[in-house]
Amino acid sequence: MTSTPLTVDPAARPVDAPGPRRGLGVGELRLDGGFWGRLQETNARATFQHCLDWMERLGWLANFDRVADGTTGPDRPGWQFSDSEVYKLLEALAWEHGRTGDPSVDATFRKLVDRVAAAQDDDGYLNTCFGHPGRPARYTDLSSGHELYCTGHLLQAAVARVRTVGPDDRLVEVARRAADHVCREFGGGGSDGICGHPEIEVGLAELGRALAEPRYTEQARLFVERRGHGTLAPVALLGPAYFQDDVPVREADVWRGHAVRALYLAAGAVDVAVDTHDDDLRAAVERQWARSVERRTYLTGGMGSRHQDEGFGDDWELPPDRAYCETCAGVASVMVSWRLLLATGDVRYADLVERTLYNVVATSPRADGRAFFYANPLQQREPGADVLPDAVNPRAEGGVRAPWFDVSCCPTNVARTLASWQAYAAFVDDGAVVTLAQYAAGDLRVEVAGGELVLRVDTAYPHDGEVRVEVRSAPHGPEPVGGSRAVTLRLRVPHWASQEGGAGATVTGPDGVVRPAAPGWVDVAVREGDVVVLGLPVAPRFSWPDPRIDAARGTVAVERGPLVLALESVDLPDGVALEQVRVDPAVPARVPDDVEHRDGAVVTARVEPLPEVAPGRPPFGPDGAPPESEGPPEPAGSAPVDLPLIPYHRWAERGPSTMRVFVPTV
Amino acid sequence: MTSTPLTVDPAARPVDAPGPRRGLGVGELRLDGGFWGRLQETNARATFQHCLDWMERLGWLANFDRVADGTTGPDRPGWQFSDSEVYKLLEALAWEHGRTGDPSVDATFRKLVDRVAAAQDDDGYLNTCFGHPGRPARYTDLSSGHELYCTGHLLQAAVARVRTVGPDDRLVEVARRAADHVCREFGGGGSDGICGHPEIEVGLAELGRALAEPRYTEQARLFVERRGHGTLAPVALLGPAYFQDDVPVREADVWRGHAVRALYLAAGAVDVAVDTHDDDLRAAVERQWARSVERRTYLTGGMGSRHQDEGFGDDWELPPDRAYCETCAGVASVMVSWRLLLATGDVRYADLVERTLYNVVATSPRADGRAFFYANPLQQREPGADVLPDAVNPRAEGGVRAPWFDVSCCPTNVARTLASWQAYAAFVDDGAVVTLAQYAAGDLRVEVAGGELVLRVDTAYPHDGEVRVEVRSAPHGPEPVGGSRAVTLRLRVPHWASQEGGAGATVTGPDGVVRPAAPGWVDVAVREGDVVVLGLPVAPRFSWPDPRIDAARGTVAVERGPLVLALESVDLPDGVALEQVRVDPAVPARVPDDVEHRDGAVVTARVEPLPEVAPGRPPFGPDGAPPESEGPPEPAGSAPVDLPLIPYHRWAERGPSTMRVFVPTV
Repeated sequence: MTSTPLTVDPAARPVDAPGPRRGLGVGELRLDGGFWGRLQETNARATFQHCLDWMERLGWLANFDRVADGTTGPDRPGWQFSDSEVYKLLEALAWEHGRTGDPSVDATFRKLVDRVAAAQDDDGYLNTCFGHPGRPARYTDLSSGHELYCTGHLLQAAVARVRTVGPDDRLVEVARRAADHVCREFGGGGSDGICGHPEIEVGLAELGRALAEPRYTEQARLFVERRGHGTLAPVALLGPAYFQDDVPVREADVWRGHAVRALYLAAGAVDVAVDTHDDDLRAAVERQWARSVERRTYLTGGMGSRHQDEGFGDDWELPPDRAYCETCAGVASVMVSWRLLLATGDVRYADLVERTLYNVVATSPRADGRAFFYANPLQQREPGADVLPDAVNPRAEGGVRAPWFDVSCCPTNVARTLASWQAYAAFVDDGAVVTLAQYAAGDLRVEVAGGELVLRVDTAYPHDGEVRVEVRSAPHGPEPVGGSRAVTLRLRVPHWASQEGGAGATVTGPDGVVRPAAPGWVDVAVREGDVVVLGLPVAPRFSWPDPRIDAARGTVAVERGPLVLALESVDLPDGVALEQVRVDPAVPARVPDDVEHRDGAVVTARVEPLPEVAPGRPPFGPDGAPPESEGPPEPAGSAPVDLPLIPYHRWAERGPSTMRVFVPTV
Repeated sequence: MTSTPLTVDPAARPVDAPGPRRGLGVGELRLDGGFWGRLQETNARATFQHCLDWMERLGWLANFDRVADGTTGPDRPGWQFSDSEVYKLLEALAWEHGRTGDPSVDATFRKLVDRVAAAQDDDGYLNTCFGHPGRPARYTDLSSGHELYCTGHLLQAAVARVRTVGPDDRLVEVARRAADHVCREFGGGGSDGICGHPEIEVGLAELGRALAEPRYTEQARLFVERRGHGTLAPVALLGPAYFQDDVPVREADVWRGHAVRALYLAAGAVDVAVDTHDDDLRAAVERQWARSVERRTYLTGGMGSRHQDEGFGDDWELPPDRAYCETCAGVASVMVSWRLLLATGDVRYADLVERTLYNVVATSPRADGRAFFYANPLQQREPGADVLPDAVNPRAEGGVRAPWFDVSCCPTNVARTLASWQAYAAFVDDGAVVTLAQYAAGDLRVEVAGGELVLRVDTAYPHDGEVRVEVRSAPHGPEPVGGSRAVTLRLRVPHWASQEGGAGATVTGPDGVVRPAAPGWVDVAVREGDVVVLGLPVAPRFSWPDPRIDAARGTVAVERGPLVLALESVDLPDGVALEQVRVDPAVPARVPDDVEHRDGAVVTARVEPLPEVAPGRPPFGPDGAPPESEGPPEPAGSAPVDLPLIPYHRWAERGPSTMRVFVPTV
């Protein structure tokens, strides 16, 4: 341990792929609070300690101590993958320290690393569930054991450390030895097994890059290529698609099975494809991304329709009420899209990152950072009351955020993502084009060709659609004499900012001219002192489901800028149930007057009487209503009512409620 | 063993509850083929041997031999509950033999019983998974071990034997010893455990009745009362509602959790309530039935919306595409409704039995009786191609019937239900009212007060709505002198045969007068020689989902008599996909001209162009269609088309297809 604060590298970033595009370092953008800054503050102030406390309380940390002191046994607490939560928290701490330089975060990190490192075997193996007295032997349950999965998260945490403080670090050393062990065990000539839960692939590929160690990349490649040949032993009643062992990665057309597994695998495959210049493999993931986004992705960006296997459904199988949309799948989707964005520059990947960050990742944590959604359904049919405060909860049923879960993968995944949010905000292309992929108020300071570019971004986005970018400083060069070089500022006009049927986006250039801007990238040549203003139309808008989505037929959703909105029962007039509401889509959704709902919308709706239940009959009948319904008379107050919608990410903060994103029109 | 054919009792019936109503004996109605007669023939000709062959091939039968010869070990094939499949097949064989007296069926039964009996321990314990060398100890996993569940099915099989050939039978002796063992282990003063999967309750209650042994009834009562106090160890991530251990039976308002468990438990609870005159307990099950039928039951009568836990969903959570509707839950629902019908005489229970028999139980077996649906979804989104012929298949995914399953509870459950179908067709009230609850052509011969009543039923139901009942013989008595006594013939007018908006049901009495008949029971006093004709309106009709069923909004189903119909892709014109079809509900559904579809219907529909997929965008957009849709021009042939629907129970007999019961109108 060191007593003097470490120097952190502001350019540290999780994905440091070869190629023309370089993502922003977590220290290169200082946020002024705002949407993401506040989440980041809560993450640092509350969530880290919350996770630490729970893992200590449940013995997940002590599992490492028991390996170290040789007292393991059959009664180990936690699931077989609980080590990975510790590693994800380490990764979160590493990014937080890298972004802020806060020595207390570094101290917490180091104390944790000491306990982890003490559990590492002499040959580099590190796992508290397998391979020690009283425990199953190493790699005896590749399908369900999650050993390599845990190692993958260990490596990702180490990558955060390499990037932020350099390779001379205790966790990096632990990870290097663990990776070497994996290469020995599973490399050419060793076992040809794979892990039931992908993650080792992305961990090895990232560490290979960070340490310039091609053996790790090669091992990642081997794991990617071995998959899809049905070698994993079946898990319960689930087929090989559950863990993507049904079709080789480079042959698959769509994501299927367990969503987090599919997406971690895809992230690793992109890393491998980029590092090995395997365009065929990269194209395969791009193809899978496109088909899955077009047919198997929710309005929120959420992925995974099914509870049964936490998995993707068939095409168009997107039920709002039983949407699984696991928080971790949202995190993993951002990982994949960001990698494809760096690899291709295609704006669609940035659009999906935004959609997923605002509506999945930001939805999971409660405002105080001490409770989380595991699943993120788009409809809550009954008020959720199944969460025990201050207790371990089952993972999936929605309605109320829970402090901790039996399978508690989501809190630490949110923590590491929020801690490194800046890394997904911008990138630099060929050292000359600075691209803003996400918008938040703050100061950006990044290396470009010839020197440093300093941008000041002012915006209340997503509440307000105006984003003002001032070039505070740009490199000075030989041409023109005495002035700064021209740099290209590339701004993202989100897909939702369409010109059709309403005000579209505009860009006001340094010349003061306001120009319409179509969705996609818009380039502006700027020099020091220039100001560019992007105007995005964040008025509420209706979004209609594709008619092939059976479960959303006859409904409409409301979005506002990047935010998906929701109608929550606590906002309904007394005596009105959510099932009674029918939105009138002929009346545009509009901005609410009151401050409480300022980021939401108001819609006009009618309140329909609920049909009577036909006693003892299934709820189907000849009259478009249950059989024997009396057809109650129209209530006196059946005039249209105005109803407020709130941002989906903030629902369930006001007690148990029902909620819907897709509100019926018929 | 005996070499002379046994005499079977035609009045043998599964449920022989005390009270005024006595169900029909399986030998009291001889079917003339027809809908159920043909299924019963196929069951006897193909399904029994099919099940035997599979259980022999997989070693599930040999498991008994291994216990008998002391060669058990860790490598036992089959799930922990595979014994129960053998018992359900024994029950099917017992009913088949009881109905037909076929000595070859009896011989098959006896050979199987010999193998089962040889595995029974000296103290009556009988289970091939637990309690023997190399196996876990007895009752060490009550939550998941299914030991008492298996015993319950053993007892039900023995009940079939008591009823059909009497108590002097080897299987009955085995069951008696097994039941005595259970009473010793789990009775007052013994373990206070319960089984994770209910079934022992109904088995003990039935055996208690059949052998007039109140200890068994009392033990059933204990198991029912013990449940609902959270004593079962949790299974994986499922809460106590999964096995109805969340709320005591007499306090619950609705069924929840695993549907088969909930329903077997309810059946046992009714038996206990009736036998112990516990009106409170009976009322609790009636309350649960009503609420569950009204809010958690599919048009088909199918129960269980969720794949995750094979369980009930929340109220109104009835997605057609992911409907689980396990075949076994249909069987169990018939068990419960039949018991409540006998206990109360309420016609609603008979209506649900009909709906479930035609649309769940009859849907499961393939026409050849050698493949089955485990789940019975009401929509197939992609052509099912995941079934391996001649192999063990996973249980749940729909689309193609499979010969056998890893968990293969459904084939034997269908077998025992079809073999005893007659038992659910009619009942006699106070020896004076003969009630026809189901309609099928054949000869009914039943004891009533004063002697025997013989009815001849002629009908092509459900293809045709005319049911002609002739009183061939009725008891003769002192009054009037020389004539037969008057007997009340009670006919069921199904709920769907409503007068509203169309031709309703009629009854033509012995006087030749045609009278309208409202849904419910209609009584006709008859004497020998009388003919009564029931006319049921089986023209196709639209059925609309309750507006609270979100997943079926904007759709309509078509029914015909008791049959739910379905639109299957193989019946669509070339080039038309099921997703394109919109039914025009302004044009009535009508009877098809062609013989192939004679039990179906024809609807008028338009074929809508499918919107283009917006590349790389989630399928939601501003125009009621995906973003960037080109809005393809109306195709030339967009005139309304006539499309044929088939009975749902016969879908998927013509190769992989897509299918929907609820067809969109918008």
